[in-house]
Amino acid sequence: MSVTPIQLQGAPHRQHAMEAGTINPGVLAAQYAVRGELPTRAAALQRVLDAGGAAAAALPFREIIYCNVGNPLAVGNRPYTYHRQVLALCDCPDLLQGLDAATAEKLFPADVQAAARRLLQATGIGGTGAYSESAGVTLIRQDVAEYMNARDGLAGEHPLAATAADVFLSNGSSGAILMLLSLLADTGSREASAAAAASRTVMPSSPPAGVLIPVPQYPIYSALLTVLGTHQLQYHLQEHRQWALDVTELERLVQDARQRGIDPRALVVISPGNPTGQLLEAANVQEILAFAHRERLLLLADEVYADNVYVDDRRFESFRRVLHRDMPSEVQRELELVSLYSASKGLVSECGRRGGYMLLSPGVTSAAREQLTKIASIMLCPNLGGQVMVDCVVRPPQPGQPSYPLYARERAERFASLQRRAHLVVQAFCSMTAVECNPSQGAMYAFPRVRVSARAAQAARDAGMPLDTFYCVRLLERTGICVVPGAGFGMRSAGEENGDGSVSFYLRTTILPPEDKMHDVMDAIKKHHEEFLHKYGSVSKM
Amino acid sequence: MSVTPIQLQGAPHRQHAMEAGTINPGVLAAQYAVRGELPTRAAALQRVLDAGGAAAAALPFREIIYCNVGNPLAVGNRPYTYHRQVLALCDCPDLLQGLDAATAEKLFPADVQAAARRLLQATGIGGTGAYSESAGVTLIRQDVAEYMNARDGLAGEHPLAATAADVFLSNGSSGAILMLLSLLADTGSREASAAAAASRTVMPSSPPAGVLIPVPQYPIYSALLTVLGTHQLQYHLQEHRQWALDVTELERLVQDARQRGIDPRALVVISPGNPTGQLLEAANVQEILAFAHRERLLLLADEVYADNVYVDDRRFESFRRVLHRDMPSEVQRELELVSLYSASKGLVSECGRRGGYMLLSPGVTSAAREQLTKIASIMLCPNLGGQVMVDCVVRPPQPGQPSYPLYARERAERFASLQRRAHLVVQAFCSMTAVECNPSQGAMYAFPRVRVSARAAQAARDAGMPLDTFYCVRLLERTGICVVPGAGFGMRSAGEENGDGSVSFYLRTTILPPEDKMHDVMDAIKKHHEEFLHKYGSVSKM
Repeated sequence: MSVTPIQLQGAPHRQHAMEAGTINPGVLAAQYAVRGELPTRAAALQRVLDAGGAAAAALPFREIIYCNVGNPLAVGNRPYTYHRQVLALCDCPDLLQGLDAATAEKLFPADVQAAARRLLQATGIGGTGAYSESAGVTLIRQDVAEYMNARDGLAGEHPLAATAADVFLSNGSSGAILMLLSLLADTGSREASAAAAASRTVMPSSPPAGVLIPVPQYPIYSALLTVLGTHQLQYHLQEHRQWALDVTELERLVQDARQRGIDPRALVVISPGNPTGQLLEAANVQEILAFAHRERLLLLADEVYADNVYVDDRRFESFRRVLHRDMPSEVQRELELVSLYSASKGLVSECGRRGGYMLLSPGVTSAAREQLTKIASIMLCPNLGGQVMVDCVVRPPQPGQPSYPLYARERAERFASLQRRAHLVVQAFCSMTAVECNPSQGAMYAFPRVRVSARAAQAARDAGMPLDTFYCVRLLERTGICVVPGAGFGMRSAGEENGDGSVSFYLRTTILPPEDKMHDVMDAIKKHHEEFLHKYGSVSKM
Repeated sequence: MSVTPIQLQGAPHRQHAMEAGTINPGVLAAQYAVRGELPTRAAALQRVLDAGGAAAAALPFREIIYCNVGNPLAVGNRPYTYHRQVLALCDCPDLLQGLDAATAEKLFPADVQAAARRLLQATGIGGTGAYSESAGVTLIRQDVAEYMNARDGLAGEHPLAATAADVFLSNGSSGAILMLLSLLADTGSREASAAAAASRTVMPSSPPAGVLIPVPQYPIYSALLTVLGTHQLQYHLQEHRQWALDVTELERLVQDARQRGIDPRALVVISPGNPTGQLLEAANVQEILAFAHRERLLLLADEVYADNVYVDDRRFESFRRVLHRDMPSEVQRELELVSLYSASKGLVSECGRRGGYMLLSPGVTSAAREQLTKIASIMLCPNLGGQVMVDCVVRPPQPGQPSYPLYARERAERFASLQRRAHLVVQAFCSMTAVECNPSQGAMYAFPRVRVSARAAQAARDAGMPLDTFYCVRLLERTGICVVPGAGFGMRSAGEENGDGSVSFYLRTTILPPEDKMHDVMDAIKKHHEEFLHKYGSVSKM
């Protein structure tokens, strides 16, 4: 008995249920380079190194340095002591049993014990092992609301202050993004649409949705929109204005989409920017808020890097803060703003917990809230470890508590070090021939533009690779440093011709390896870059 | 300035980005009753009780007993000591620092320390706080593969034994189900389909997918398929054959779907059954395997209750075990079988961890594996706490290890108690007038059929409620016991007329409240039921 293809009336033969011809075209088309070709090549080299012997010795480096993904703890950054103690005690409250008070206090300072007791009282008898409410433990959502109100200037009795009901915890902010895009998409109308096509009747009355996303962009948005079959309306950040948003372009995109029968429903803004590291000016934020309100767009403010701001003269200002400080009251009441935050970034960096949340502003309709609740309930609840970590993020030790001095020291050290690394990386790129790099004002990345000769572009074509990949693969193979080509964030993989015979492309690197190593990383990138220019022909200083 | 609707060419006015007219029709249409109306009403009553006072005193019960969701730890079942110790030590390895050996050993027995060390070595320097590989920590996936090989009779050097590459860890098995259904759906072809409809050209060449799902059924399948706009092909379990599968009906459904231009691509089987508790006979499993292979269907074996089997004379046999023991070798090689398992069920019951996995059999194509990897990478990784718990599930303490005696005792106690409760609940239902209930051979539920008079059905209509909801709401309001109407699992909400003036409907209850309480629960249900029959007119004994 051998496999014979199935004949479906009017359909192609197939041998498998899930094969190239049947797998969801959206999944097939989706791209996610942060964990794509470069990291795959890096992992292969890692295996060579791990195996040792002659093959390893022949490599021109002794270790792989992962600068492809914002995963700070994986490259030697340290977690907060307090947060881990609270998590461990919540997960295993029996640890306290039978310990004398002194030992207990040494393992779990009094504030840690109090925080764990408070959380476990809120989770009920099941603790962190039971499903919570679908949107997350109510107490933790309440803590989030208070934190966000304080952060955004809505503390006290502000009439538009958030409550627990405005907060949805999620498995990382990725989980919140998926929930939200699922609501914005039209996946459920496919059957209706197919039926209409089959009977040659008119399309269903609701026009297809479009979502405005930045280029360059953290690719979860483009990838999930592709999976969900939803129109991406790509707007370009302005490199020459430190990656600011041009509202004129947004307006043009919206008008153009409507001409094409697409209903633009949401605008995604990432601030501080990933991969670009920009911090938007308040005036720019105001323009964006007014635009989103005017055009009835849901504004998705991806602010997971809110605590990663490295410029001395400015601080992070959330969309929600600017909304409630600077905008007319009807905009405050009506704008459908969703603010994202996470335990994975900031100085907490607990990526592996998958703890995140979204906060809904008053303008988000009750219909949307009801549907988000249903989506959350279908997936049961976000993981409780992530929820506990979120609570530690929004409710860290306070002055006067036993854990505060250590926490404050850890925070100051981590911040200062990240800040130094942000400056170091950008300075190093700027010191290289034919490389330009905006300041990394925030987030965990630098996104330089690299200019090379037409001969280098030809060499890439000869090697059967896009130019940015070609450059990054060479860098990896020469130095062991793994970065991501700009195409992974929506830039042209083959680069842009500058008209003078040179070609520009982009790459993203994290700023996360430890400080001493980061110096070596940048030296190695610089050395490789100069060799590359030497080999393929230099370009004039820009 | 007030909100004026946006006029989109040829599209309806809208005032909000996300409102009833724009939210994904699939999300709007999806249903998930396990956390729906009854639990919502129960939560409202809970608030009355919590507030105390006259309103609380007026209620005819003193507590809400949640029998709506399989969340064992939330209703007093206890977690395994070893698992929690390993988790806590992985999350906070610093706890060992500065402890004398005796205290350390008391808190964390030697095997706990060894397990944590082994896991932390595998996660690398970032521990449980860093992103892991997208599919999960390789070592944990390897442990899963070994466990599944042993469970399914493929241990040793079996040529079709699974490896780490066949395992995808996930945020609960819900996460794995979502990944898989995303691949099976056609969401990404919506743009193509819309374009075809607009230009009145023919449909895209790949016919829309259909997925065979059981009725009654755990509603994540129907809900997600509705969200994804994918055709549900519902087959009915045979109540009179202890909820067995009728392959003839599957064949009929497949043929019929093809006639309608739908390509049936997958078959979902839940065993042990949820909500039905059935354990399929090996002969039935063989038929199903042969059918899925013959029709080139991906077979999704939802076996999360594999360890919840309460009948003495039979043990759980997985689809994978029967496949490799009883089926021809080409079926073993070619069948696209995916096996689900979880840390949320069994005797572990760590629902809140959101730890689960799927194991792919050799027939799953490399194209599908590649796309699953991409989907996993877009969401970065499953939460590490859930991953650690999965490792504890597949690698529990072994005889001779210090934690073994306690683990073995906990396991035996928990199992015996669950088994007693499963029998107790079913016996109690069978002792009630006009109630029939198949044995709860496995899982955590009973799914009785309740027969009431036409007058009761009329009373439900008068109250503006479906009959099953009407009955369950009365039960809740009278006793504080929260169960789920059968409609939540795909049964007719208004019930089925029996031709003798009586009407039958279904409800699902968990068997999870503590044993002493479970006796009271069943007594209360019985008392309420007899009162209900008395009030609305009795029906003859069936």
